Amino acid sequence: MNTHPVLVEAWRGNAVESFHRGAWIVADAAGRTVASAGDVQRPVFPRSAIKLLQALPLVQSGAADRFGLDDRELALACASHGGEAVHAATAASMLAKAGLDASVLECGTHWPYEEGAKLALAAAGRAPGPLHNNCSGKHAGFVCLGCMLAGDGDARTCLAGYVRQGHPVMREVDASIESCTGWRLADAPRGVDGCSIPTYGIPLSRLALAFARAGTGAGLTTARADAARRLREAVAREPHMVAGTGRFDTQVMQHFGLRVFCKVGAEGVYCAALPEQGLGIALKMDDGTTARAAEVALAALLQGLLAPLDDAGQALLAGLARPALRNWQGLEVGRLAPHATLDEAAKRSGA
Amino acid sequence: MNTHPVLVEAWRGNAVESFHRGAWIVADAAGRTVASAGDVQRPVFPRSAIKLLQALPLVQSGAADRFGLDDRELALACASHGGEAVHAATAASMLAKAGLDASVLECGTHWPYEEGAKLALAAAGRAPGPLHNNCSGKHAGFVCLGCMLAGDGDARTCLAGYVRQGHPVMREVDASIESCTGWRLADAPRGVDGCSIPTYGIPLSRLALAFARAGTGAGLTTARADAARRLREAVAREPHMVAGTGRFDTQVMQHFGLRVFCKVGAEGVYCAALPEQGLGIALKMDDGTTARAAEVALAALLQGLLAPLDDAGQALLAGLARPALRNWQGLEVGRLAPHATLDEAAKRSGA
Repeated sequence: MNTHPVLVEAWRGNAVESFHRGAWIVADAAGRTVASAGDVQRPVFPRSAIKLLQALPLVQSGAADRFGLDDRELALACASHGGEAVHAATAASMLAKAGLDASVLECGTHWPYEEGAKLALAAAGRAPGPLHNNCSGKHAGFVCLGCMLAGDGDARTCLAGYVRQGHPVMREVDASIESCTGWRLADAPRGVDGCSIPTYGIPLSRLALAFARAGTGAGLTTARADAARRLREAVAREPHMVAGTGRFDTQVMQHFGLRVFCKVGAEGVYCAALPEQGLGIALKMDDGTTARAAEVALAALLQGLLAPLDDAGQALLAGLARPALRNWQGLEVGRLAPHATLDEAAKRSGA
Repeated sequence: MNTHPVLVEAWRGNAVESFHRGAWIVADAAGRTVASAGDVQRPVFPRSAIKLLQALPLVQSGAADRFGLDDRELALACASHGGEAVHAATAASMLAKAGLDASVLECGTHWPYEEGAKLALAAAGRAPGPLHNNCSGKHAGFVCLGCMLAGDGDARTCLAGYVRQGHPVMREVDASIESCTGWRLADAPRGVDGCSIPTYGIPLSRLALAFARAGTGAGLTTARADAARRLREAVAREPHMVAGTGRFDTQVMQHFGLRVFCKVGAEGVYCAALPEQGLGIALKMDDGTTARAAEVALAALLQGLLAPLDDAGQALLAGLARPALRNWQGLEVGRLAPHATLDEAAKRSGA
């Protein structure tokens, strides 16, 4: 295993208590590396960080138009949402537009990630369903795509097993990933994602390239570039749908709108696009820590790459890059911080 | 930052998705290193892994006898519990025996860690209190100790600020840690723990020594050795109290009884004692990952050190060392596993 640099430190009192290693890259749409650290050629599972790429066929196929999906629904198709009431309702609405309901979803069920939504559900004596799964919007998009592909066939029959590699829906999704990344999936490491679709090992360098392309349209067919822009615009208008209350991606896109597209993935992965700079970003923490490591690293990179920032943008990213750690009495007991070398690299690459 | 070896791998499909580095040591009560990996001289915050050492003054001072604490209560004093109803009730009982209630606790409040308890509380329309804090038993023990130390003074007045360094309660607790580890706390890195008491940077080598001592009594005063044995016996009889439903420490001690004492701490720390072997164990994952990293590493070490194991012991530890990872549909999508070098080292050190 390569030894990657320390990217994020967790301070408690006067000492570094824990630290997180990882690799990251900033690249342009021609595949040129602007800056990087660690082994960015080793394939990693991007997990939910590439939901934007996985949602492109929903738009390109015409399914989004046929079923009249609005911005909230398109944003939810790119989301890892908190299972808040509005998220579940929006996923249900997407399915209803295709004449279906949650019984076709193959994503599985878990309690809402958002604490308030979880406790409210429990307090109401209810149990969660697949609509509360953080991937329900992506899956509702797959279902709409599947209905489009089914043509005159029976939708439920055609949809069965849509999560499995080789199903017409997954063939479209995988082709979109291949086309954007230029990485052949047939030979890639392969696993099953939390929501049961395949996930493929793809180098960070290829993921950064794909997001530079998705942010600019460069290197994509016109249809795919248009689909990417439409999805990014939907997320920029409805950033609450892509994550939810208090979440990193929602906060960043609420503030920066179309200037930043960023999407978290499980196991410490992040992908992002900076359309104005023509850049894509991909990173992965070795240990799979997302909330307190990948987010801090991305915030530090964004600070550097988006400089100069206005006061509000600076305050937002500084807070996300150096969040205070509080204990159960609310006392500030420590702080997360990007490692000095990451901070330096981010500043240099933004110059 | 030292580069520590990879101790645990998280596999998904046919690839290692994430991995965890760390340091560990097995030592005897004379401080001799039996086996180790990584820098075991760097101070780390042991957090809740040393609750056994922090509970010794409760017994030694006579407070446990004065208030008639039973095995369940003594086990809870060493616990990071799940906030299940029985845990909260037992902490309340300890306080009641000292004539007090939860209003004296300074540990702060959080929802029960155990999912069932959390959802049941929410479903009942209730909010958590300090009794649900995973440290409420330790704090109830501190309160009993504080009442003992208060003598004829007003207990509430004497207890105020018992979590702060320099308070008579913390002076006793810190003296116990110093005595068991032989490590001077005055010069150590210092932070505030999740439950607001001080936590001190102590090398893993000293923590392993302390647990070899606490498991055997060697190197401790008779009074301290007796207190350690009494607490270990209480935990062995009531292992549900030290953690709870489905938890690692409870499972291991339910099976092995007095043969193993193990205690998790936040940020990927573990301490353990193997009294029959005369050994202590201490480990910390660099990235602070507990449930899926520190536990796997400790299970692998226990497998090696306790060999030969009977079938049930082997099955338990093998399951804890190589747990399957399942997704939201219940599909097995991967597996955690100790790195080959950890497995090898564990086997050698048990020979």
